[in-house]
Amino acid sequence: PLRVVSSCRLVIYTFPFDIQNCSLTFGPYLHFATDMRMIQGLTSEEILKESQDVLQTNGEWELAGISVAPSTLTLDEGGYSEIKYYIILRRRPVLYVVNLLIPSCFLITVDLFSFLLPPQTVDRSSFKMTLILGYTVFLLIMNDLLPVTGETTPLINVFFSISLALMVASLLETVLITNIQCSSSQYNAVPRWLSVLVLRYLAVVVFLPRKKKNNQITVFLNPSLIAKNFSNTDISAIQLQPVFGDTPPVNPPPEPALDELRKLSRDLLAIRLQVDKHFQGSETSQEWQMIGIVIDRLLFGLYIVFIAVSFITIICLWSNHYAA
Amino acid sequence: PLRVVSSCRLVIYTFPFDIQNCSLTFGPYLHFATDMRMIQGLTSEEILKESQDVLQTNGEWELAGISVAPSTLTLDEGGYSEIKYYIILRRRPVLYVVNLLIPSCFLITVDLFSFLLPPQTVDRSSFKMTLILGYTVFLLIMNDLLPVTGETTPLINVFFSISLALMVASLLETVLITNIQCSSSQYNAVPRWLSVLVLRYLAVVVFLPRKKKNNQITVFLNPSLIAKNFSNTDISAIQLQPVFGDTPPVNPPPEPALDELRKLSRDLLAIRLQVDKHFQGSETSQEWQMIGIVIDRLLFGLYIVFIAVSFITIICLWSNHYAA
Amino acid sequence: PLRVVSSCRLVIYTFPFDIQNCSLTFGPYLHFATDMRMIQGLTSEEILKESQDVLQTNGEWELAGISVAPSTLTLDEGGYSEIKYYIILRRRPVLYVVNLLIPSCFLITVDLFSFLLPPQTVDRSSFKMTLILGYTVFLLIMNDLLPVTGETTPLINVFFSISLALMVASLLETVLITNIQCSSSQYNAVPRWLSVLVLRYLAVVVFLPRKKKNNQITVFLNPSLIAKNFSNTDISAIQLQPVFGDTPPVNPPPEPALDELRKLSRDLLAIRLQVDKHFQGSETSQEWQMIGIVIDRLLFGLYIVFIAVSFITIICLWSNHYAA
Amino acid sequence: PLRVVSSCRLVIYTFPFDIQNCSLTFGPYLHFATDMRMIQGLTSEEILKESQDVLQTNGEWELAGISVAPSTLTLDEGGYSEIKYYIILRRRPVLYVVNLLIPSCFLITVDLFSFLLPPQTVDRSSFKMTLILGYTVFLLIMNDLLPVTGETTPLINVFFSISLALMVASLLETVLITNIQCSSSQYNAVPRWLSVLVLRYLAVVVFLPRKKKNNQITVFLNPSLIAKNFSNTDISAIQLQPVFGDTPPVNPPPEPALDELRKLSRDLLAIRLQVDKHFQGSETSQEWQMIGIVIDRLLFGLYIVFIAVSFITIICLWSNHYAA
Amino acid sequence: PLRVVSSCRLVIYTFPFDIQNCSLTFGPYLHFATDMRMIQGLTSEEILKESQDVLQTNGEWELAGISVAPSTLTLDEGGYSEIKYYIILRRRPVLYVVNLLIPSCFLITVDLFSFLLPPQTVDRSSFKMTLILGYTVFLLIMNDLLPVTGETTPLINVFFSISLALMVASLLETVLITNIQCSSSQYNAVPRWLSVLVLRYLAVVVFLPRKKKNNQITVFLNPSLIAKNFSNTDISAIQLQPVFGDTPPVNPPPEPALDELRKLSRDLLAIRLQVDKHFQGSETSQEWQMIGIVIDRLLFGLYIVFIAVSFITIICLWSNHYAA
Repeated sequence: PLRVVSSCRLVIYTFPFDIQNCSLTFGPYLHFATDMRMIQGLTSEEILKESQDVLQTNGEWELAGISVAPSTLTLDEGGYSEIKYYIILRRRPVLYVVNLLIPSCFLITVDLFSFLLPPQTVDRSSFKMTLILGYTVFLLIMNDLLPVTGETTPLINVFFSISLALMVASLLETVLITNIQCSSSQYNAVPRWLSVLVLRYLAVVVFLPRKKKNNQITVFLNPSLIAKNFSNTDISAIQLQPVFGDTPPVNPPPEPALDELRKLSRDLLAIRLQVDKHFQGSETSQEWQMIGIVIDRLLFGLYIVFIAVSFITIICLWSNHYAA
Repeated sequence: PLRVVSSCRLVIYTFPFDIQNCSLTFGPYLHFATDMRMIQGLTSEEILKESQDVLQTNGEWELAGISVAPSTLTLDEGGYSEIKYYIILRRRPVLYVVNLLIPSCFLITVDLFSFLLPPQTVDRSSFKMTLILGYTVFLLIMNDLLPVTGETTPLINVFFSISLALMVASLLETVLITNIQCSSSQYNAVPRWLSVLVLRYLAVVVFLPRKKKNNQITVFLNPSLIAKNFSNTDISAIQLQPVFGDTPPVNPPPEPALDELRKLSRDLLAIRLQVDKHFQGSETSQEWQMIGIVIDRLLFGLYIVFIAVSFITIICLWSNHYAA
Repeated sequence: PLRVVSSCRLVIYTFPFDIQNCSLTFGPYLHFATDMRMIQGLTSEEILKESQDVLQTNGEWELAGISVAPSTLTLDEGGYSEIKYYIILRRRPVLYVVNLLIPSCFLITVDLFSFLLPPQTVDRSSFKMTLILGYTVFLLIMNDLLPVTGETTPLINVFFSISLALMVASLLETVLITNIQCSSSQYNAVPRWLSVLVLRYLAVVVFLPRKKKNNQITVFLNPSLIAKNFSNTDISAIQLQPVFGDTPPVNPPPEPALDELRKLSRDLLAIRLQVDKHFQGSETSQEWQMIGIVIDRLLFGLYIVFIAVSFITIICLWSNHYAA
Repeated sequence: PLRVVSSCRLVIYTFPFDIQNCSLTFGPYLHFATDMRMIQGLTSEEILKESQDVLQTNGEWELAGISVAPSTLTLDEGGYSEIKYYIILRRRPVLYVVNLLIPSCFLITVDLFSFLLPPQTVDRSSFKMTLILGYTVFLLIMNDLLPVTGETTPLINVFFSISLALMVASLLETVLITNIQCSSSQYNAVPRWLSVLVLRYLAVVVFLPRKKKNNQITVFLNPSLIAKNFSNTDISAIQLQPVFGDTPPVNPPPEPALDELRKLSRDLLAIRLQVDKHFQGSETSQEWQMIGIVIDRLLFGLYIVFIAVSFITIICLWSNHYAA
Repeated sequence: PLRVVSSCRLVIYTFPFDIQNCSLTFGPYLHFATDMRMIQGLTSEEILKESQDVLQTNGEWELAGISVAPSTLTLDEGGYSEIKYYIILRRRPVLYVVNLLIPSCFLITVDLFSFLLPPQTVDRSSFKMTLILGYTVFLLIMNDLLPVTGETTPLINVFFSISLALMVASLLETVLITNIQCSSSQYNAVPRWLSVLVLRYLAVVVFLPRKKKNNQITVFLNPSLIAKNFSNTDISAIQLQPVFGDTPPVNPPPEPALDELRKLSRDLLAIRLQVDKHFQGSETSQEWQMIGIVIDRLLFGLYIVFIAVSFITIICLWSNHYAA
């Protein structure tokens, strides 16, 4: 009955799925190998079986196997006979899978789905920010659970870093799209090459056929026509004419009713243009928004591809090490 | 007066309601059973009573019972007489119920009720995201309180994982519904089969009778009629006609008042259509929104059923183990 | 100079205001009471005074009193003379009051005041969710500070649980009210009994006199009148008549100006009804919203009453124990 | 080479800037002062210099000074010659300033600036709630860093409590203002005394001169005039007259065009009033909002004053103790 | 086989990239240097190689080098021969880079990008507040990981403080801009010098050419003209004239149709002005908003410059120390 505390070099590269191989070396260091020779009394299966019976509080480690090998420590003055026990410990990953991997995958899934949120109506950037906040809290949990001993960085750290990077990248993308969608009215006209590149070619890639304008026009009764009428000449002049100079030549007799009608017509047109502009935005603005939608969908696709590739790689690495 | 530190294999499957059975074995390992025999001096009731008197700082463990049994450790060379004390310890669950289970149930209840929030007007997805953030903070508390010793994963971990999964699932559902409701204007027309399936059959399942359209039409004075009139022909032509070509044949004399009236009428119609479209959305959009509502309610029902089944199962498991 | 570690059964029912009574028993267990008798050398006041002088790092405990009593431990073979020192330790509650109770009361106050936020315009449910999130973080702090030793659950745990329960309840109430306010347009008409019960009787209880409708009508020029005119007959028919068949019989000569005016009138009426409907909502909707307001205020009242009763009870319990 | 663990009564009133004075007493308690006398070998400067050289891992404590004084412990039987070393330890405050005070001041500053957010358009209450949530997280950090040993509550705790109280107070103020601004349409007219007190006197105090109404009226063409015209008589009657009875007496010949014009005029007036009401709110509502703005600014001023006074007091206390 | 616990003065100025130099001194302090002389048996390379083979659980420290030097401790009575081993330990920075620096840089990047969010439409201040909240959670993680031993404040603390300060500064800036943008309607006219300074000179600095007003006017048909017409005279008088006194002199015969038309015209003008005002804001308001945009962009530029300079400085300091 002797309590021995030994240390073991942990290989935590595949952290929650890792298998440690620790060796215990016993030897009579007072007698040379010529005097005393260590031989093993039980086969390694018997030792394993007995150890598993005796072992009680194994916590997160599971005794997976024990192998025995005699060896000799050779020094200058002579050798010592030794017996080395290799103890294979397999970590029980359930705790870490349940507390770290599953919630993390949940958050990534939410981040993925959040691309479905319309960036304009709902505040998608705020949603994603809260998500990243949740992930930060999550890193806090992780720091309490993760082992710090070891030379190599565990793969799970890479997993979390990639997850965080993806979230941040998707947040930045959202901010960009929001900027395009909301501030588009301050922009200049879309450059020709951008318009062609995005709306003609990329839009096809993301299965977003360019909307036929005609359908939409049936509803608001093309204001571009009206705008075209007024675009060549000075609007203010046109406005002024009916008030001061234009009415007399058309109607020599001061016909007050017609005058009132013209004023009515002018005001109504002003309201109509204002309303059209409000509900629909300018041409430029619309085009920018369309570009925003196309880019949003394109980056969404790239995001899915990148996530898939990253996670399949990591899972492959884990399963390889776990099987080995 | 001797302090003995012993270890005990914990069975934490039913964690906050668990009962541990630890054994203490006393024996004179210097003398064989033929030389010395251990017999118990007090009955187990007396020992229990005395122990409970003496026990002071029992913390979260309550001494539930002690049973005594003599046994013999038989080795090849002879046996040792032993006495085994089985100490039944019952964990006081109040702390964990108050700090873990009750807040968790509260959060789940909030998640359940959040289905009542209208997904369009209020930002339901953001609400649910904050809820999940709160739950993550909560998992942080849990990790400090939960024991990590033990082979099996405690049932409470399953409980928390299911809760988190449900929350995430309901968040994803909300994102989906929000997408249907907000982006519906970009969608194509609802496929026929989907419309029939959802609006006719599923709507009945969720007690949401299809709204009679007539009631609603009484208010906005069917624009579909107007739209129908303009849909066959080219709108812009119609618009242009009164301006350039159509007026002369109808009114040979250049009647300016009538002209103004026609302009007025045209502008007003444009405004009216714009307003109608804004306040009511297109037919397609409305149908998609209706589908969103039906699916939302359907999944809400499924969610309730699933929650109920999961939690009843877990409570049954707990109560079984606690009673046993 | 001998360091003795003793343990003391803590009574933490009134946790941050608790007073512990620990006993130290000294006795010569090698000599029976007949041989050696323990007598106290100093009065308990002297001991207390000297102890307080000597005591340096008392941390959160304050030595409140020491009382001394000789006693005898009687066994079968004879008794031992003992002296028992009862050490009264009073916990310094300032740390816990400042870190736990005051912030908790602050959060409860905020929750109380948040009823003042209008549930429609501002996102009250989201506000309350953030509040609950803050409270969860707060429970995290609490778990680090609270003692876990002890049989009974401390009253402060009950306090926190009630606070959390109240917050959750008020959040659920808010969700419900929000649902009534926002989704009311999808509801059927208010049932007669509910309307009478809530708007006539409960509204009086919460000092919310039913608004006189007339004042409001002066502004929007009763659309119910117009709606009534159109409700009996088929609207679409009325709409169609001026366009196709109705005009000829009324005006035998094809008077185009009048025709245009009628179109104008029709469109304007449509816009007006649309605008009225938008700004004011339907009658049913308004009634539901009124019900929502009444219930909101009623539950607010009940909430205040419940909070007051709970906290007065808890404070009474604490002050009783602290005074004792 | 002897390791001595001593304890020292910490005075943590001025916590991160505190200076501790610990004493170490050495004496030969086997020999009376008559037999053996302790004299110091080195001056206190030499000791200090040598200690500072030797001291390696001083962590957060800096050895500020050592003073030496011989003393005598006088008992009844005789005295012992002692030497007392007073060790002055100064805490390095940088860690706490960087981690506790600076972020806390940042949060307070944000809270102060958040008064600039318009309570109506942006959700100021939600902003402040998030701020308080951040402060709660912050208290969590604080609890890990703050010492709990000591009798008095450190001044930094008072600092944090005042900060939290100020934040909560400003949040409550915001909720109140939001209530006034958003729910003002449900309120009764502003009481005369309140209107005079707030709008005439307090408005001057906060440099917010009452807006001249005329400027605003130039834009919306005083609807109060129209409202006045209709306020005396029953609106519905006026409305009905043109439809049923009023038109015949005015125009004996059934002039349909005029009839249509009157209908047009009526509808347009209704829309205009609706739009006016929407964009501008009622008189009462406007007055309440003005009161809200004045009170908001007034409390903002008080808040600044209170913050300034509190923090200057605390800083004075700290600097006094640090200098001493 | 002797376990020696030694302490080493850590220099944590360049914390996660630090290299520690610890010395171990061995000497026979029973024998003077004249009697016994310590000489090193192996070269420092051999010692290093052997140590690295033997070293197993090195955790976060990597043995970078060992150098050996004989020395002599000279006292008055004689000297002791000593051997000093200098052990160079290099910290493995991966853990800290992954857990502290990368997420921190991510958050800073998000903060930088959040300037792209339009301050008006989306709630940018709320977004930034959540970001700061996330950073606070992050400081919590940092406090668990950072070493507290050491005299100097590590550079990483400065890094975090600067990051937090930048975030808070940008939040304050956002609040200010939001105030300018949202509350601009309450402001007085822009002072002349401010307008010239910001809109003419600063706008050029930030590549934001002043918008030509004409383009915008083409859409809403210059209301300033109308406003100018009404600004000289009393509007209410003009309004009243057509109703009571003005119509009779113009049209001696009571022409009801013209009367109705005038009423129509007046109402429509009122609506038009209201709509214009709503969609476009007043001149002053627009100018303030323009100023807000210019300042926002200017401070954004300064922010980028400051961030760049700070981080390049810190990285230079780190790389210098790491290379050394």
